[in-house]
Amino acid sequence: MKTLNTQVAIIGAGPSGLLLGQLLHNAGIQTLILERQSADYVLGRIRAGVLEQGMVDLLREAGVSQRMDRDGLVHDGFELALNDRLAHIDLKALTGGKSVMVYGQTEVTRDLMEARADAGAITLYEARDVQPHDLKSDRPWLTFEHQGQTFRLECDYIAGCDGFHGVARQSIPADALNIFERVYPFGWLGILADTPPVHAELVYAKHPRGFALCSMRSPTRSRYYLQVPADEALEQWSDARFWEELKQRLPAALAEQLVTGPSIEKSIAPLRSFVVEPMQYGRLFLLGDAAHIVPPTGAKGLNLAASDVSTLFRILLKVYRQGRVDLLQQYSAICLRRVWKAERFSWWMTSMLHTFDEADEFSQRIAQSELDYFIDSEAGRRTIAENYVGLPYEAIE
Amino acid sequence: MKTLNTQVAIIGAGPSGLLLGQLLHNAGIQTLILERQSADYVLGRIRAGVLEQGMVDLLREAGVSQRMDRDGLVHDGFELALNDRLAHIDLKALTGGKSVMVYGQTEVTRDLMEARADAGAITLYEARDVQPHDLKSDRPWLTFEHQGQTFRLECDYIAGCDGFHGVARQSIPADALNIFERVYPFGWLGILADTPPVHAELVYAKHPRGFALCSMRSPTRSRYYLQVPADEALEQWSDARFWEELKQRLPAALAEQLVTGPSIEKSIAPLRSFVVEPMQYGRLFLLGDAAHIVPPTGAKGLNLAASDVSTLFRILLKVYRQGRVDLLQQYSAICLRRVWKAERFSWWMTSMLHTFDEADEFSQRIAQSELDYFIDSEAGRRTIAENYVGLPYEAIE
Repeated sequence: MKTLNTQVAIIGAGPSGLLLGQLLHNAGIQTLILERQSADYVLGRIRAGVLEQGMVDLLREAGVSQRMDRDGLVHDGFELALNDRLAHIDLKALTGGKSVMVYGQTEVTRDLMEARADAGAITLYEARDVQPHDLKSDRPWLTFEHQGQTFRLECDYIAGCDGFHGVARQSIPADALNIFERVYPFGWLGILADTPPVHAELVYAKHPRGFALCSMRSPTRSRYYLQVPADEALEQWSDARFWEELKQRLPAALAEQLVTGPSIEKSIAPLRSFVVEPMQYGRLFLLGDAAHIVPPTGAKGLNLAASDVSTLFRILLKVYRQGRVDLLQQYSAICLRRVWKAERFSWWMTSMLHTFDEADEFSQRIAQSELDYFIDSEAGRRTIAENYVGLPYEAIE
Repeated sequence: MKTLNTQVAIIGAGPSGLLLGQLLHNAGIQTLILERQSADYVLGRIRAGVLEQGMVDLLREAGVSQRMDRDGLVHDGFELALNDRLAHIDLKALTGGKSVMVYGQTEVTRDLMEARADAGAITLYEARDVQPHDLKSDRPWLTFEHQGQTFRLECDYIAGCDGFHGVARQSIPADALNIFERVYPFGWLGILADTPPVHAELVYAKHPRGFALCSMRSPTRSRYYLQVPADEALEQWSDARFWEELKQRLPAALAEQLVTGPSIEKSIAPLRSFVVEPMQYGRLFLLGDAAHIVPPTGAKGLNLAASDVSTLFRILLKVYRQGRVDLLQQYSAICLRRVWKAERFSWWMTSMLHTFDEADEFSQRIAQSELDYFIDSEAGRRTIAENYVGLPYEAIE
């Protein structure tokens, strides 16, 4: 067995693993990333596309923002559509100048991959059977297979950035973790198409037939979603049926302007809220989807991973530079405060905008009243806006 | 059968019936109030004690505010207690100068009764078997028994101010009404005591043992509440047990200052959300509890009755003075917009602050996260404050 050494071993080369790696590398801290899949596979996943100000700032800090700053679309607001009423959430005015950036997760990943390659830092793709060991010791290590060889990787710390189904969380004893979970009785049917977006901003639509979202990746590439039952079969949805249903759920003025076209990707994703506590075990730290899942309403998933990355990066920086090992024990608590607020917002946006078949009439009217109140009240709109652009990151002191 | 005549017949001599009667009487519109109970019985009911700015203004407009303005306690804020954390909601600062008035419903009723007696307007107490007729005609009428005689009361309009169990709503055909209802799995055990209040402001306390509220009626009279199971037996609660349990649910610093004493009233009230739509049928208009019930968390019940009174009063004023009979059809829609927002706030305060035995762990953490977010965010605190002081009344134009 060949033995490797690094300071911080990172499991997973998605955006959070790569971003943490880049920030640490720039700070002179050695990292090695292990990724189960190939680079092409990782880049083939279609995911989120709305970046909070905090994540945009972090990508700039990591020095990987050139293409985002050139091609990304700055959005100063979004629309809530309630049947035929359009209510504008003016993010910039309501938050004192903040906005979000529309830039696909795939592009973020590509930029980070290129930056890592340029920096000469190592990512081992198609690393199989990754297994962390001795997490409670001062010198944890991992085993994995790569190109037919078995390796032992010794390190100071392990960052679990390998998603909901990854090995990181599973390598923590079950009795050391508390799980909080809600599975929603519906999913999102998403379509990607090379058509101009129906509207310059995102449109979140509540409709008796179900929720719909009009999003985008660029001025010529649209991303649309429809609420469908959790057990819906993808084969039931031809492109024609998708467009027809979407039109029915949008205000007439928007539906008339919808440009349709062939889908270049179509898939159904389940909706889930999930949090594990704590987000660390010995020298293993969980980040992003490895520790928490939000339903996509409100676009918090990727952004929450970014704030975990920021927290762990700033803690490790003080650990290596100032010997502040006391900070390591604070990682989980600091992350979870922000995680739960994002979980709350995502749950609230999901509950408010989707149709729940089993809801009694009182609950339905309360959901409608929530929307009416929060839209009609300036303070209410501010709560939506400040969560949407992202609550502030906590300082590490 | 003796026949009487009036312009507006009012069923119920609680605060909404009396306040509507006073406002109409002052405007030269004739009213006659029928009340099933005796005046002493009505005054013996212990009810709400926190008046919104809008209701305070309405009482002043009705000319019945002298004693309230002298004895009422202006509260510029209240406290939310979360285990040992106290969070202050600064109503005045958060709403641009608004506050609430602590003044018991019993006192409001007494002031209105005296004003009506002084004005020489008629209230028939102990009017039995009140029954409205011909509501869809231009000339509705009521029958009732009073002191052994049967009467017929002819009028232009009927105001149903006779509460949740009253005859007004029940006299509307069931198929003309939509009911929205939620019954909560707990009640409030309330105690009235001649002891100084534990705190200068109201304290709403969330605690794993259940919700508690520290309220008051005057600087020497306290009102406290405990969340108890819906089927709790009052006999189970000695004064000693009540005080002991209350202390456990309050932050230690407050519990230490609690002055206990013998209760002068003790009762258990169920918690319910209820709305009927529409709030009118022909020439019968429903006001207050006859049309909607809120759980008491947030003190919206009496205040919502006052805004119904204001709406009907201003409509009737324009009907009698300017012939604006077109406005009559708007009564229900105008009231319901504000009713649903108050229902939402009361439901939210109730859901957030009470313990729900059947709640899964995710729901419990979401409720905690709601509280944390709304307390930590200035915009969040503003949403609480603006609802607590009362959302604005709609103009009648």
